[in-house]
Amino acid sequence: MAHTIIGVMGPSRCDAATAEKAERFGRLLAEAGFTLLCGGGTGVMEAASRGAHAAGGLVIGVLPGHDATESAPNPYVDLPIFTGISHARNLINVLSSQVVVAIAGAHGTLSEIAFAIKCGKPVVLLDSWQFSVPESPPAERVFRAKDPQEALALVKQLA
Amino acid sequence: MAHTIIGVMGPSRCDAATAEKAERFGRLLAEAGFTLLCGGGTGVMEAASRGAHAAGGLVIGVLPGHDATESAPNPYVDLPIFTGISHARNLINVLSSQVVVAIAGAHGTLSEIAFAIKCGKPVVLLDSWQFSVPESPPAERVFRAKDPQEALALVKQLA
Amino acid sequence: MAHTIIGVMGPSRCDAATAEKAERFGRLLAEAGFTLLCGGGTGVMEAASRGAHAAGGLVIGVLPGHDATESAPNPYVDLPIFTGISHARNLINVLSSQVVVAIAGAHGTLSEIAFAIKCGKPVVLLDSWQFSVPESPPAERVFRAKDPQEALALVKQLA
Amino acid sequence: MAHTIIGVMGPSRCDAATAEKAERFGRLLAEAGFTLLCGGGTGVMEAASRGAHAAGGLVIGVLPGHDATESAPNPYVDLPIFTGISHARNLINVLSSQVVVAIAGAHGTLSEIAFAIKCGKPVVLLDSWQFSVPESPPAERVFRAKDPQEALALVKQLA
Repeated sequence: MAHTIIGVMGPSRCDAATAEKAERFGRLLAEAGFTLLCGGGTGVMEAASRGAHAAGGLVIGVLPGHDATESAPNPYVDLPIFTGISHARNLINVLSSQVVVAIAGAHGTLSEIAFAIKCGKPVVLLDSWQFSVPESPPAERVFRAKDPQEALALVKQLA
Repeated sequence: MAHTIIGVMGPSRCDAATAEKAERFGRLLAEAGFTLLCGGGTGVMEAASRGAHAAGGLVIGVLPGHDATESAPNPYVDLPIFTGISHARNLINVLSSQVVVAIAGAHGTLSEIAFAIKCGKPVVLLDSWQFSVPESPPAERVFRAKDPQEALALVKQLA
Repeated sequence: MAHTIIGVMGPSRCDAATAEKAERFGRLLAEAGFTLLCGGGTGVMEAASRGAHAAGGLVIGVLPGHDATESAPNPYVDLPIFTGISHARNLINVLSSQVVVAIAGAHGTLSEIAFAIKCGKPVVLLDSWQFSVPESPPAERVFRAKDPQEALALVKQLA
Repeated sequence: MAHTIIGVMGPSRCDAATAEKAERFGRLLAEAGFTLLCGGGTGVMEAASRGAHAAGGLVIGVLPGHDATESAPNPYVDLPIFTGISHARNLINVLSSQVVVAIAGAHGTLSEIAFAIKCGKPVVLLDSWQFSVPESPPAERVFRAKDPQEALALVKQLA
């Protein structure tokens, strides 16, 4: 039966407090029976992968490069998907996830949030981007969580 | 000799005032000798293309679909590049432009702004997105213009 | 620990004899502990997925469309990866597989064989394409198997 | 008005005789009023670009890398389109061309021929790949030319 895949997006570098949240969220996802998909790299991606792995969950890493030499998967990735299409793989991360969760974030993460809204995917933000544009209402189905537990509760509702 | 390509990003629907600005900017770009690249569609893309075309400029449209049936180029596109890769083509728009100019914008445009910053391209914003993330300084080389003339002056400095 | 992923490429329509071979090969792969990756569709892809699934293996389907409405995964896909990038996803199939196995094949499969050789992946062909070009020697690391058992033996050597 | 774009595909290394044919064909294309699209690189791509350029034609180069440092366009490319999506850009070459002409070829060219047939584009082959698969008739709209003049005649019929 097809797994229910939840995407966790975030920067390749983060501080310890953010990593701790990402790891906790990855663990909660796996404990709830979800399969985690991320960009396969370091920072928030690695922390969330570690959490999911520790709870026995499956971790998919969708990487930008051609191979492990060019894009090393973090050690907790069970299924490295090498795309060779660089940042364009951000679209795949979004389309393959039933809910897109962004934790903190640099500009790659912002592109994923934007793609998710564009593609009609529900988005959960934890300590992540604020964004607005003149004369346009905020997007529907974008939610802000105050901690990993609240993010998981939102994912359960939205998946 | 290679053309100097400037990207104009913006939504496929816009109000008349925005279209007027986009058209004026397209015209200014072409008069200054730049080649315009856009997503090839309607709205801001079409208005900017119309302006460039009226001034005798060359217009490249990088389209998401496989062909004109799936992704009709606007009537001012001289060179339709059909990608078949959907929104992932937003990366190409950014990488092929020496400066990325966003006029107004929906979420596709936000993804292009994010990719541009990620890829180190200078960005000029005209009535476009505001965005920020906790504990991170604003990106360098992101400029806000108050009108098409100022946007052109910035492009000339940055190209 | 990262799974060892083997790609099975083939057409979305095939006759019963080819389907039987693909299913048998999928079963052998899973029994040998490999994870199967395919394009996620019908025909050879579905038959190989069914075989792997029956043997308790994990099946990754890398699909061309945005979602299950546009690109329905076959019923044996555990992990549908929706790319939205159409045939360009063929590159991902190749890069994510340690060995690329082509069974029969239409032109999509031929593009995958070509990408695999271009990217230095070993290729195993079963009832699949013949190809040659003037004044160029045949590619190295392209092997022809006479049946699924021989294809598995080659995969074990090459993975 | 939209240009009529013809794609010329071929390897990044070739012998002098092949380069001479590619250059002659590029020249003929431009003299006939077509815009040439190629992968933007060396070998057959550069030779065809040089021919088109010498005849005053416009040359589009669709490159695999992010920028000129990673993927230097040959000196005759007027419009470098940087994709960042590596070999996946081969799909774009095909979709953006009204006719796909392959001259000689390595495996990248074979992927383009395969994509062209898959996408229903007419294909003209000059000293290029032979390919067949068991129990399947040859593709329609694939033509073999004996020299650049015959290739041009075919392009004129097919565009």
